Amino acid sequence: MTEDTMDAIPGASAEPAVRSRRDFLRGAAVGLAVPAVASALAACKAEDAGRGAARTAPAAAPASATHADSDHSGGTMAPNPQNPGAAAAAAEEMDRHHEAGIKSFPAATKGKGNQPIQPRLENGVKVYDLTAAVQQWEVAPGQMVEAWAYNGQVPGPQIRVKQGDRVRVNLTNNLPESTAIHFHGVSLVNGMDGVPFITQPPVKPGAKFTYEFVVPNSGSHMYHSHLNSAKQVPSGLLGAFIVEPRGGETRRADVDYVMIINDGPHGYTLNGKGFPATEPIVANRGQKVRVRFMNEGMMIHPMHLHGMPMLVTHKDGYPQPQPWHCDTLNVAPGERWDVMIDCDNPGTWAFHCHILPHAEGPMGMFGMVTALVVK
Amino acid sequence: MTEDTMDAIPGASAEPAVRSRRDFLRGAAVGLAVPAVASALAACKAEDAGRGAARTAPAAAPASATHADSDHSGGTMAPNPQNPGAAAAAAEEMDRHHEAGIKSFPAATKGKGNQPIQPRLENGVKVYDLTAAVQQWEVAPGQMVEAWAYNGQVPGPQIRVKQGDRVRVNLTNNLPESTAIHFHGVSLVNGMDGVPFITQPPVKPGAKFTYEFVVPNSGSHMYHSHLNSAKQVPSGLLGAFIVEPRGGETRRADVDYVMIINDGPHGYTLNGKGFPATEPIVANRGQKVRVRFMNEGMMIHPMHLHGMPMLVTHKDGYPQPQPWHCDTLNVAPGERWDVMIDCDNPGTWAFHCHILPHAEGPMGMFGMVTALVVK
Amino acid sequence: MTEDTMDAIPGASAEPAVRSRRDFLRGAAVGLAVPAVASALAACKAEDAGRGAARTAPAAAPASATHADSDHSGGTMAPNPQNPGAAAAAAEEMDRHHEAGIKSFPAATKGKGNQPIQPRLENGVKVYDLTAAVQQWEVAPGQMVEAWAYNGQVPGPQIRVKQGDRVRVNLTNNLPESTAIHFHGVSLVNGMDGVPFITQPPVKPGAKFTYEFVVPNSGSHMYHSHLNSAKQVPSGLLGAFIVEPRGGETRRADVDYVMIINDGPHGYTLNGKGFPATEPIVANRGQKVRVRFMNEGMMIHPMHLHGMPMLVTHKDGYPQPQPWHCDTLNVAPGERWDVMIDCDNPGTWAFHCHILPHAEGPMGMFGMVTALVVK
Repeated sequence: MTEDTMDAIPGASAEPAVRSRRDFLRGAAVGLAVPAVASALAACKAEDAGRGAARTAPAAAPASATHADSDHSGGTMAPNPQNPGAAAAAAEEMDRHHEAGIKSFPAATKGKGNQPIQPRLENGVKVYDLTAAVQQWEVAPGQMVEAWAYNGQVPGPQIRVKQGDRVRVNLTNNLPESTAIHFHGVSLVNGMDGVPFITQPPVKPGAKFTYEFVVPNSGSHMYHSHLNSAKQVPSGLLGAFIVEPRGGETRRADVDYVMIINDGPHGYTLNGKGFPATEPIVANRGQKVRVRFMNEGMMIHPMHLHGMPMLVTHKDGYPQPQPWHCDTLNVAPGERWDVMIDCDNPGTWAFHCHILPHAEGPMGMFGMVTALVVK
Repeated sequence: MTEDTMDAIPGASAEPAVRSRRDFLRGAAVGLAVPAVASALAACKAEDAGRGAARTAPAAAPASATHADSDHSGGTMAPNPQNPGAAAAAAEEMDRHHEAGIKSFPAATKGKGNQPIQPRLENGVKVYDLTAAVQQWEVAPGQMVEAWAYNGQVPGPQIRVKQGDRVRVNLTNNLPESTAIHFHGVSLVNGMDGVPFITQPPVKPGAKFTYEFVVPNSGSHMYHSHLNSAKQVPSGLLGAFIVEPRGGETRRADVDYVMIINDGPHGYTLNGKGFPATEPIVANRGQKVRVRFMNEGMMIHPMHLHGMPMLVTHKDGYPQPQPWHCDTLNVAPGERWDVMIDCDNPGTWAFHCHILPHAEGPMGMFGMVTALVVK
Repeated sequence: MTEDTMDAIPGASAEPAVRSRRDFLRGAAVGLAVPAVASALAACKAEDAGRGAARTAPAAAPASATHADSDHSGGTMAPNPQNPGAAAAAAEEMDRHHEAGIKSFPAATKGKGNQPIQPRLENGVKVYDLTAAVQQWEVAPGQMVEAWAYNGQVPGPQIRVKQGDRVRVNLTNNLPESTAIHFHGVSLVNGMDGVPFITQPPVKPGAKFTYEFVVPNSGSHMYHSHLNSAKQVPSGLLGAFIVEPRGGETRRADVDYVMIINDGPHGYTLNGKGFPATEPIVANRGQKVRVRFMNEGMMIHPMHLHGMPMLVTHKDGYPQPQPWHCDTLNVAPGERWDVMIDCDNPGTWAFHCHILPHAEGPMGMFGMVTALVVK
């Protein structure tokens, strides 16, 4: 740990010291390396006293005698007289790794998946070209894996269409084996369902195949391989296929975020990246964020958001009869869940799978961790 | 791959070619070996153009210039000029295995579980005789496993009674160890609950035990061993115990299908068989299918239906306050979920666990895969 | 097996014999070693005939000819003439182990977690002192494990506050590594969220940290470590944080039971203990029991109650729009579910995870098993 770091992060000192919450937040903000998050936190701090008061204390809450040195809308740290100087070198080393991981968030890596793709319009048909090929993918800083990807992205390009649209998807297979695309959740005519030997022949290496259909049902859906799928899908042949209802979304979202969960040969990832290379969700206080969870992995992941509840509005693209709140949502492979978050609590909020070994190890957070930043 | 196969399945050709969806469906139909499914697909094809039009295009949708060779309600395949002749022998070999598996569906195996059992009536009591014994079981073609089974079936005989019925179950234990039957989900009087040393003594090898009760609550329930259960249940000592409500089912189903999920020593199975020995669900267009999911395994399985949503009506036999739609339903061990499927989309639809390694490997589909065939 | 045991438990005899349900229950009651459960069962038996009749038969239900030796509201056991003397020594040995486990329930062990903690009041603030330290923990009789615990308890002390309360938690870290407390599900101001390097510095070994806040939202929440959490949480740094709504609970419960599920290095546990050291839930007939399920483990556990349904009222502390019934509830890590049980069915009812290898092995029940005793 450098002297600089110790200055910037009060609590990182080997000598425990009394600090107010305002100092801690300043330390955390300094520790966050990327402008978006840092400025979000700065904005958060500007509103801090008011918010803190609203959340933590009536205006006239008296300070207790033993805590006169703190502002009482936050926390205090003190040396433990029963156990002075107990900090071991191993604990410091562990903290240093944890801190370094968080400071580097969101870390830059080569390649970004799940990017919106604009269709080419041909006689009123929205045309998308997808090429499947094998490539290298940087899943976390310096960590390269083999990916089977559409258009060089993991997840593949994010397709957004409208209910009733006529859509054409031109698939080119540059993989070493056959493949096919299943539009998971879209109630297509059978011949477009993408299951080799049941609804179509396999698309051979070097071949092309065109899917064309009118989109019948709205919702958060997916597209992915349906051949040798236990290998091809988790390796990256997956993407979001989002269908806006004919009459528009019933709930307005200021931010519409797709979170694709995977746990295959790339490790535990959100949108193709593991922490600290995951992407934070950034919103202003008072805004509404929609998150569309999609699980393309092989395990079930209970996703937990700190600080605010999630209102569950849709399952697999279908509205729930009555939305309901939670802070931890269990998302199984093949499932999609839409939630709305009312961003009324400023700060940087951890957002992670609550199967803890998918999110943290002795050397720090990794895998299925991101943050919701409410400015 | 034989010449015959290549003729029958257009897309199986090593030379990619332009084909219409109608050809692909014909190919798939030829590929399906069993009359029920084949004739279902034939019926499906007869309605195809209309359905396809309804689902995929307004009647007057113009053909685009680059696709004049297709009918535009389906897909097209074309050679990829950038990558001619890329099909490797390994890819062909993989496809051949995938095709062979699907062509053999539904494959014949010895023994069929989950068969309705008729009670013997004794003074108004519905009497069922169940004998538990060890035997061999053909879980998939040629794949024999040791089963612990009731009446030679895995799952055991399907028991259907009515709420308020007086039922007697005579259990004979021909196993090498003690056993007992728990009627899972049926709110019986304590002494009939089937938990050795808590509600009854174990039923020793060679002994008999009689359960007798009036059925208090309706719904999709189960019966299974409750002694050394982690061994006895997944080995086959399990079955459906379905109780019709006193006033009859509130939702009419043309087809009422029980799908018992298991993942024990027999591998990944639906009703005691792995694909391609699983049983398709067959319905006519316009019919309503009820599926009663029951998980008797040790893992959670998200079951995904292609082509149509499922309306979730009951959990563990109790009605959901407001039914809700999904296409992927997460079914945990011990849970039962009832869904209704409105069969409005003709075709052969894959129906499988979406934990992909439970459904497909490099050599083709296996395990937790079946199909809904809408004629 | 001793002679005494054979006398007490009729069915444990090596010679199968015809017995009525009343005898079996008596046997089971004798077999249960602990007064609370034994007296509960005794009470249950007093009401038995009435209840049995209500549940199993109309008053005038005729006895069938073949069962004149039983009372017909229960079960009967008979020797199997086709297979006399088949009971093997191995089967007897297995039964002996199963019986011994159940007879010892609830078994005494050193240490009890999840005990209500009373706050110290300081100027209207509810103050709790929590000290985290490493210790030994008896998870089941004679089975010692290393625990990382708050105040010597696994789970940590059960904190119950009221919405709007001002709460102070003084954490002292006597662990060999840094830690922090996250109040999981409580929508606190960001600085109190307990995520080191994001909302606060880590609490170093030997240091103290004070959390202070006004509790904004009601419900079944948790507190646990949020540093090196995949190690610290399942090792025991976890506890219940229950917030009564400002206006009081809308549903009255005679018994309010917190069930914290864990599956870390201590094995499969409920409230820090594995069967037979788990604690039964005891209620009188007609009473209402609330169970607050909380999963602090790394696996999903479908919890199954015998004998009566559970009414699901809350998810993560938020009311479900319309409560719904089930008998098996899937609880994922980080989730909390509140259910109400209407104790209308007297007896001792198994209550366990239905992933059977989490609850039973060849040598008997263990791990995630307890009982609801309705007197």
